[in-house]
Amino acid sequence: MDLRSEARRVAVIGTGIADSGVYEMAYRVGWLLARRGALVYCGGLGGVMEAAARGASEAGGLTVGILPGNKAEEANPYIQIPVVTDMGHARNVILVRSVEGVIAVAGGYGTLSEIALALKMWKPVVGLRTWPGIEGVLYVETPEEAVDRLFRVLEGRE
Amino acid sequence: MDLRSEARRVAVIGTGIADSGVYEMAYRVGWLLARRGALVYCGGLGGVMEAAARGASEAGGLTVGILPGNKAEEANPYIQIPVVTDMGHARNVILVRSVEGVIAVAGGYGTLSEIALALKMWKPVVGLRTWPGIEGVLYVETPEEAVDRLFRVLEGRE
Amino acid sequence: MDLRSEARRVAVIGTGIADSGVYEMAYRVGWLLARRGALVYCGGLGGVMEAAARGASEAGGLTVGILPGNKAEEANPYIQIPVVTDMGHARNVILVRSVEGVIAVAGGYGTLSEIALALKMWKPVVGLRTWPGIEGVLYVETPEEAVDRLFRVLEGRE
Amino acid sequence: MDLRSEARRVAVIGTGIADSGVYEMAYRVGWLLARRGALVYCGGLGGVMEAAARGASEAGGLTVGILPGNKAEEANPYIQIPVVTDMGHARNVILVRSVEGVIAVAGGYGTLSEIALALKMWKPVVGLRTWPGIEGVLYVETPEEAVDRLFRVLEGRE
Repeated sequence: MDLRSEARRVAVIGTGIADSGVYEMAYRVGWLLARRGALVYCGGLGGVMEAAARGASEAGGLTVGILPGNKAEEANPYIQIPVVTDMGHARNVILVRSVEGVIAVAGGYGTLSEIALALKMWKPVVGLRTWPGIEGVLYVETPEEAVDRLFRVLEGRE
Repeated sequence: MDLRSEARRVAVIGTGIADSGVYEMAYRVGWLLARRGALVYCGGLGGVMEAAARGASEAGGLTVGILPGNKAEEANPYIQIPVVTDMGHARNVILVRSVEGVIAVAGGYGTLSEIALALKMWKPVVGLRTWPGIEGVLYVETPEEAVDRLFRVLEGRE
Repeated sequence: MDLRSEARRVAVIGTGIADSGVYEMAYRVGWLLARRGALVYCGGLGGVMEAAARGASEAGGLTVGILPGNKAEEANPYIQIPVVTDMGHARNVILVRSVEGVIAVAGGYGTLSEIALALKMWKPVVGLRTWPGIEGVLYVETPEEAVDRLFRVLEGRE
Repeated sequence: MDLRSEARRVAVIGTGIADSGVYEMAYRVGWLLARRGALVYCGGLGGVMEAAARGASEAGGLTVGILPGNKAEEANPYIQIPVVTDMGHARNVILVRSVEGVIAVAGGYGTLSEIALALKMWKPVVGLRTWPGIEGVLYVETPEEAVDRLFRVLEGRE
């Protein structure tokens, strides 16, 4: 079984403490990504990370959590593949480096660092209710648009 | 779907350039681990890493490659979940930290560093034709023994 | 000799390719920091990193370069203490974590990631012709203001 | 001021909890290294790390502590240049990568990992009452021999 040729790798990043609107949006992003056959990577903790992993997992997809701490048990319950970095915020760099593209949902300074790192690495970043006005971010309004836009770019159609 | 409660996480470590005897042994370790339901983590490159991932993959298991470089394409073809650290040997620490136990097959200084790190983190290390005489390593003679021994320890039966 | 109690630790971050105006500004920041007795940390490469290290070094200060690559020789000639991380952009996290405050001069996405990481870690960030409009950044107009402002904050006077 | 061309960079590694004999030995190693003009790098904590930094510092040298935790305050009092990695054992890799050679004094599994990493990176490792029988380690009996031997190798005289 070689999943590599088939599966896109996408990170969903965003706030660790999400209100229900943001949680729902991130869940939907994860769900749609899994339906498109993508592996969903995230930071492995709560909020947007949990919602995206939950959506992907419930859609039958695989979820990878790149954790900042030193225990696999810190992963949210929807992470199937925990990676335990014990590297704090440096795990943000690994998360972004591991994927082909990023979808940012809301988020604070940690998310901003990931957006910047992804752009630095020339990876497409789609933004959904996240930090405004950053040159290079592809801003969209809905989870559907986010996933569509990212796949268009990854497939060279944009 | 929550794979976490079911799946053991085991790293197979060892030389990046394996002769056919070592390759076969690592393949068998990977195969047996996958048959026991374990997620197989490795360093993602050649030799023992490739053999273990190939064995696990061909037995229907999932394989995670914690890569030292900055490109997912550097993973061997049997890695299903690449994690791209861009951190050189520091990825050894992440590999060992991410799993519950380690099986070492042959190996040079890199493998020795991983054995030492695993023991430092109080994780069981089973050794198969690897660095001799290291206190704490559980030395065995065959792939079957290696996997059995590790599972016995992880399940608290030893 | 215990330098710890005396010396502030400050990172100067910014673009790796600086025009002469930016270079001069970063040189001046480094020079002023060293005159105030600070240890000057930077990313160790060219542009703003070199200018700040040069200014600090020529003012008699100590300079630390947290390098992304795997060779100390990649440091600019004004780095006295090279730290060779071999971790690419993850060295940004170490740089910011190692200091008490940050002065950003110009800069692109890498600098933006460092600004975000510093704010995430609750460290003061003074901005000089850098990314505009980021909540939390203390924007100033001159090197003198930058250093004064940062010291005011670090000394609890603001 | 360009210290780079003049100063050798040497790491002293070893146990974090040292008895007085080992402490004295590591102190002496640090002292001698500083007298020879070397920058002394260590892991920044107690035991051998503290002793070496103290020796180097009291001989008028500069000391760099590559810390595993997330606070500069965790450094021992003889560290003049703290580098705060927040990366746990992965800081071992940075420590070894940053220097030209390593002197190991006593030590447990953490030290063993550093010895292995240094040898993997083709850096000379001098061993003083440390892990026996590792191919490639230059074993010596006294601090004087340790420093002499390392400098002989670094200067290409052996």
